[in-house]
Amino acid sequence: MTLRKPVTPTPLKRVSPVPTDIEIAQAATLKPIAQLAEEIGILPEELELYGPYKAKVKLSILERLKDVPNGQYIDVTAITPTPLGEGKTTTTVGLSQALGAHLGYSVFTCIRQPSQGPTFGIKGGAAGGGYSQVIPMEEFNLHLTGDIHAITAANNLLAAAIDARILHEAGATDEQLFNRLCPPDKNGKRRFAPGLLGRLRKLGIDKTDPNELTPEERSKLVRLDIDPTTITWRRVLDTSDRFLRGIVIGKGPEEAGFERETGFDITVASELMAILALTTSLRDMRERIGRMVVAVSRSGEPITAEDLGVAGALTVLMKDTIKPNLMQTLEGTPVFVHAGPFANIAHGNSSIIADQIALKLADFVVTESGFGSDIGMEKFFDIKCRYSGLLPSVVVLVATVRALKMHGGGPKVVAGKPLDPAYTDENLPLLKEGLANLIHHIHIVRKFGIPVVVAINRFHTDTPAELELIRDAAIQAGAEDAVVSRHWELGGEGAIELAEAVVRASQKPRKFQFLYPLEMSIKEKIETIAREIYGADGVDYSPEAEKQIEEYTRMGFDHLPICVAKTHLSLSADPNLKGVPKGFRLPVREIRASVGAGFLYPLIGKMSTMPGLPTRPAFFEIDIDPETEKIIGLS
Amino acid sequence: MTLRKPVTPTPLKRVSPVPTDIEIAQAATLKPIAQLAEEIGILPEELELYGPYKAKVKLSILERLKDVPNGQYIDVTAITPTPLGEGKTTTTVGLSQALGAHLGYSVFTCIRQPSQGPTFGIKGGAAGGGYSQVIPMEEFNLHLTGDIHAITAANNLLAAAIDARILHEAGATDEQLFNRLCPPDKNGKRRFAPGLLGRLRKLGIDKTDPNELTPEERSKLVRLDIDPTTITWRRVLDTSDRFLRGIVIGKGPEEAGFERETGFDITVASELMAILALTTSLRDMRERIGRMVVAVSRSGEPITAEDLGVAGALTVLMKDTIKPNLMQTLEGTPVFVHAGPFANIAHGNSSIIADQIALKLADFVVTESGFGSDIGMEKFFDIKCRYSGLLPSVVVLVATVRALKMHGGGPKVVAGKPLDPAYTDENLPLLKEGLANLIHHIHIVRKFGIPVVVAINRFHTDTPAELELIRDAAIQAGAEDAVVSRHWELGGEGAIELAEAVVRASQKPRKFQFLYPLEMSIKEKIETIAREIYGADGVDYSPEAEKQIEEYTRMGFDHLPICVAKTHLSLSADPNLKGVPKGFRLPVREIRASVGAGFLYPLIGKMSTMPGLPTRPAFFEIDIDPETEKIIGLS
Repeated sequence: MTLRKPVTPTPLKRVSPVPTDIEIAQAATLKPIAQLAEEIGILPEELELYGPYKAKVKLSILERLKDVPNGQYIDVTAITPTPLGEGKTTTTVGLSQALGAHLGYSVFTCIRQPSQGPTFGIKGGAAGGGYSQVIPMEEFNLHLTGDIHAITAANNLLAAAIDARILHEAGATDEQLFNRLCPPDKNGKRRFAPGLLGRLRKLGIDKTDPNELTPEERSKLVRLDIDPTTITWRRVLDTSDRFLRGIVIGKGPEEAGFERETGFDITVASELMAILALTTSLRDMRERIGRMVVAVSRSGEPITAEDLGVAGALTVLMKDTIKPNLMQTLEGTPVFVHAGPFANIAHGNSSIIADQIALKLADFVVTESGFGSDIGMEKFFDIKCRYSGLLPSVVVLVATVRALKMHGGGPKVVAGKPLDPAYTDENLPLLKEGLANLIHHIHIVRKFGIPVVVAINRFHTDTPAELELIRDAAIQAGAEDAVVSRHWELGGEGAIELAEAVVRASQKPRKFQFLYPLEMSIKEKIETIAREIYGADGVDYSPEAEKQIEEYTRMGFDHLPICVAKTHLSLSADPNLKGVPKGFRLPVREIRASVGAGFLYPLIGKMSTMPGLPTRPAFFEIDIDPETEKIIGLS
Repeated sequence: MTLRKPVTPTPLKRVSPVPTDIEIAQAATLKPIAQLAEEIGILPEELELYGPYKAKVKLSILERLKDVPNGQYIDVTAITPTPLGEGKTTTTVGLSQALGAHLGYSVFTCIRQPSQGPTFGIKGGAAGGGYSQVIPMEEFNLHLTGDIHAITAANNLLAAAIDARILHEAGATDEQLFNRLCPPDKNGKRRFAPGLLGRLRKLGIDKTDPNELTPEERSKLVRLDIDPTTITWRRVLDTSDRFLRGIVIGKGPEEAGFERETGFDITVASELMAILALTTSLRDMRERIGRMVVAVSRSGEPITAEDLGVAGALTVLMKDTIKPNLMQTLEGTPVFVHAGPFANIAHGNSSIIADQIALKLADFVVTESGFGSDIGMEKFFDIKCRYSGLLPSVVVLVATVRALKMHGGGPKVVAGKPLDPAYTDENLPLLKEGLANLIHHIHIVRKFGIPVVVAINRFHTDTPAELELIRDAAIQAGAEDAVVSRHWELGGEGAIELAEAVVRASQKPRKFQFLYPLEMSIKEKIETIAREIYGADGVDYSPEAEKQIEEYTRMGFDHLPICVAKTHLSLSADPNLKGVPKGFRLPVREIRASVGAGFLYPLIGKMSTMPGLPTRPAFFEIDIDPETEKIIGLS
């Protein structure tokens, strides 16, 4: 079955006990990224180096390899996690290392770029952990090649354009606006700037000489007449800054009369980040950016980035972000780190383009979707695979004894506090109580027609009887296999059995299907997800949500897929309900539209789109040695 | 005299009439940057490629070349400009192309990285113009290698840390704060995190075991007690967004009671940008970042980034920014594009580190300082050269017929409006009236003991009699030479005479001296600059400025050099006073301190630190061809 040559593995120099993540990463042997690119069949002219250990890959490679068959497409997801996470990225990397460095397959790992907010705030980095990591972890966790920064710049240029436009329109007649937006040159000749062409098209005007516009056409072209109360576009920063969640802008003396309430989100929660993750070409990205709706005019017309004349400039700012970033695992297998949309208000999956390229270069492409199968995986299938047309082969469902005991009724698990002994001593009755959550997630995956392999991410306190109990339940519930994995401690060697199970599962017949067709109404789509995935009895809509559904349907946005923004800590909308909650309804508070990215996102309860810093943020541990230039304290 | 080998020039394929800047740039032949690096003696291991045409140079090169003698150090400045600018960057690049591609000298150009704010807003790009440009101009004007973005990230992490710390301190007792900032580990043992070490040192505590602190020491360690009304640290974005000039933050429900007024500046106006430009090593940068004062405690103690425990993390975020970015001119000579501090509230010069490296690699290093000699050049000498210890050789003073006629009483010059015929027809009396401004600038340069060569940047409407008039006046006023230059139209070939004059001037004896010693009081320093550079009769201080001078003196900041924030459109504080204003006093409204960067900056009148977007920003012309990936409309 193997078509493509595997890479030359980098031998792992393990020590015991397992050191800190940054100690392992800094002690690792790095392959020059140009060498890795050559090993996997990327041509030198398709590679843009960013220093010796990271590079961007040009999209021209897709054209060159368009006739090569795709590899197997593996998605790693999880049961409903504890607030500590269950090791999904670590499993993704460990599985890849097993496939590529121990079983002789060609493999590619595709994961998200982390936000700097959590890296310097609460969570720390996201390059995997132990002996299953992406390196150099400092590059991974810091600026990488600047993609997130470019998104910040583009997002905020659009925000500045909206408020400036409202201000300038208010102070000018149609004629003045026309003369400013379409000024005559030295010879008195006018022409339409590129920034006006999109709006002309939208208005159905096909005149090429500005002088031939009727007064009414002129007015429509230059006056967007944005209703400031409808602006949904927020500014962004890739910093955890809670004081920017709610702000008043325009308090300067020259903006008097135009001040308004708004706020900043973290950059990874932006629509542009979702676009980067879902786009399939530069042309598609340009079009999606143009379609982004930022507000509504006083006459009820949706106002887009194209209307503001800034869509071309935003695409220019983001032109390099579209190229995936090549890195490597501790065992020398290739990784694409590309796009990092939030997993709640966005779809929480790395980019389509990285997966497309990886599937041409490797027999196995292992990617990860955010949170549990009810959130990230459902969106992987119904949004990401729908837009890409790529067919998934196998789902790996990560489970831990710890999380299952929590679902069985174990004491609360809190980040930064020691675990209760219920979690570290053998407790089969508690574990048994929690298995229903695992079984529910297996059923979710099976609904999409894809074989599922359960990866039991082993902690050193887990007992053989506990692990066996999970295994049996998983297989009985319909998993192809359930395998204990020790990749954190052992690297790829610890995930060999898991990898073998995944390879076997990838040869099983499958019949992929979406959960819902796009033609369903907005409400039908939401209710299908609520009932079939979350196990809800039904959906309740706030009056605001009802009104939004009506508006979006009127504007023609009802054909978009649905990206539910719901807590990941429960299958229900209440993070405190563990296991498999029954007898609940899904309360839809509000529905927002990411028309450019291409989805509607119902908000279920309060979703924070801007984290805060704790009293002692991660940055207290971080510093640099000015002589060796070595970073300390990044985790 | 030439010690070092010149590069292999790239032949210029000129056409006439001169096309647009981006057309010239996109038609240019680019040397692979690795090849250019090899030509100028940078080792492969000292280079970090960012794609094929830009690279960072590691600071280890300074150690390797420490015994190589420095080349000649040329600063390009200007007379008091019109709002259109007089072509200083273009002259800087053209002079370099002449020296390196036509006269066979080894040469290096060192200039600032432009802000994206003006690029997409009013001004457009800043890579030079015509046949004197830095290429690829798209890279130059967009993200380059991400230095400005890294500064944005670091600046805003510090801002978030300040407000979060105030909030967390308010809700906790000393004991709770101590337990959070210095928590016991699993074994009950406490240790000081790296983020606490700086504050411990500042408090004079040399204990290494947190348990040994007295209650009073604990309190001083963990409670900064910042007075929110004294916070001077603002957030930044590299976007022209006037609605962020004045904002209220903390309007979210969870920050109730802590809301306050503040604002965003453009990133290039930040203290971190000034630090990047003035630092001399990674250790020095780490120390300067730690020293940045962000607020004052309720007991009057200056609070620094070090006190907040975030200085190490900020340095980590900025660790790559310190490496200069290597690019090339249209004629294949090397360019460092590094740091871009604002020329009004900061010192407006590219980095010391780039100049230091360039001076080891080339016989002539041509750099540029912002605005006229009264602003950027004075700061080049009194701030930049003072911190670097580098000795300047020659100053090139750029003058135009247009600007001199304006100083002679010509009609107002406004960007975007056609020029009055007074500027395009020969008008010797008007020009003669304006020569006093040129003469004053020549005298400013001579005060520092450095030879000055006047570069008359020729426009096609200038007449031979006009040019001759300027030449004569310049030489009579003490310039070594005054040369007409046509580099915009002809590239390096058009600046050969200028280059020859610069080479001759560099052989002249010189006796460099600062304008003032650091030991002078704050007022003495300001008054020296006002009288001797601006020609003021004296200085008036607002009551606020008086109070600040007292405070800074009490805190020990009075030994810092002075960076006056004054209009560049007049030698005086009033932009409408052209020529050489007499009988005026300098009104100091306020004085701010950039303690980390290392200067005090008196504000003279209103200085905008955040530009706005016009009705028709530059972005209206910018787009990308999705097939060819070619950018259009960038200028």
